[in-house]
Amino acid sequence: MIDFQLHPQLSGDTQWLGDLPLCQVLLANDSRYPWLILVPRRAGTRELHELSEAQQQQFMRESSAVSQLMASELAADKINIAALGNMVPQLHVHHVARFTSDDAWPDPIWGKFPALAYAELAAEVTWWQQRLGTLVTFSPSRSN
Amino acid sequence: MIDFQLHPQLSGDTQWLGDLPLCQVLLANDSRYPWLILVPRRAGTRELHELSEAQQQQFMRESSAVSQLMASELAADKINIAALGNMVPQLHVHHVARFTSDDAWPDPIWGKFPALAYAELAAEVTWWQQRLGTLVTFSPSRSN
Repeated sequence: MIDFQLHPQLSGDTQWLGDLPLCQVLLANDSRYPWLILVPRRAGTRELHELSEAQQQQFMRESSAVSQLMASELAADKINIAALGNMVPQLHVHHVARFTSDDAWPDPIWGKFPALAYAELAAEVTWWQQRLGTLVTFSPSRSN
Repeated sequence: MIDFQLHPQLSGDTQWLGDLPLCQVLLANDSRYPWLILVPRRAGTRELHELSEAQQQQFMRESSAVSQLMASELAADKINIAALGNMVPQLHVHHVARFTSDDAWPDPIWGKFPALAYAELAAEVTWWQQRLGTLVTFSPSRSN
């Protein structure tokens, strides 16, 4: 069984917040949008449908918990969820809180504007780890 | 219980292929990309996380079956799956087969180019209904 390792193209643009039972939870380093990325810790997986049925069900539980948390904590107008991965061959699912006032609204965010890195990334990580901490199955990363 | 009705903005740009136990299956009338849209038949639902847990699990089964079918029937390079819905308030989940040779590759398809309607829409519908017919829970629409 090959060990899971986060793809360098994903680690480069994100901060690792912690782990749910199946997925790593990453924060995208783009202050334009509250943007989390869930990465099932399964080596060699590109498509959601390649997960086993049990893993797909677990993914759905984790995705919905994160989506619901984002929607309620941020009073988002909409949550956008997408598994794209045309360029990065590791399955990763975007969860973006959208607002009618955000830079890209009403369009999808991908490719609209260059990322704006957070000025206070450590503070953002802490904020998200506290919110995700309300999910009983979340374990925060320690390498902040 | 309010009856489900497909939102007019969705019916306007699509053809109804048929039904899975939870979702309507629509074909997007854009010949640039093989593009299906799954619409859970639940009135008043905007976000995946608003479905019950059982419905979310059923959604995941249907989404994976459709995604796997598209990937294998078309020898797709990648499947893009997205729940966006910033403008259309009814939950609908895009399933797009992508190819390195398609018009938008490697970008997401939304908003890249105007839709190119199929010249032979009825033939496309029949083709998809035959493929989806290999899924035992699929019921084709009759109003072709």
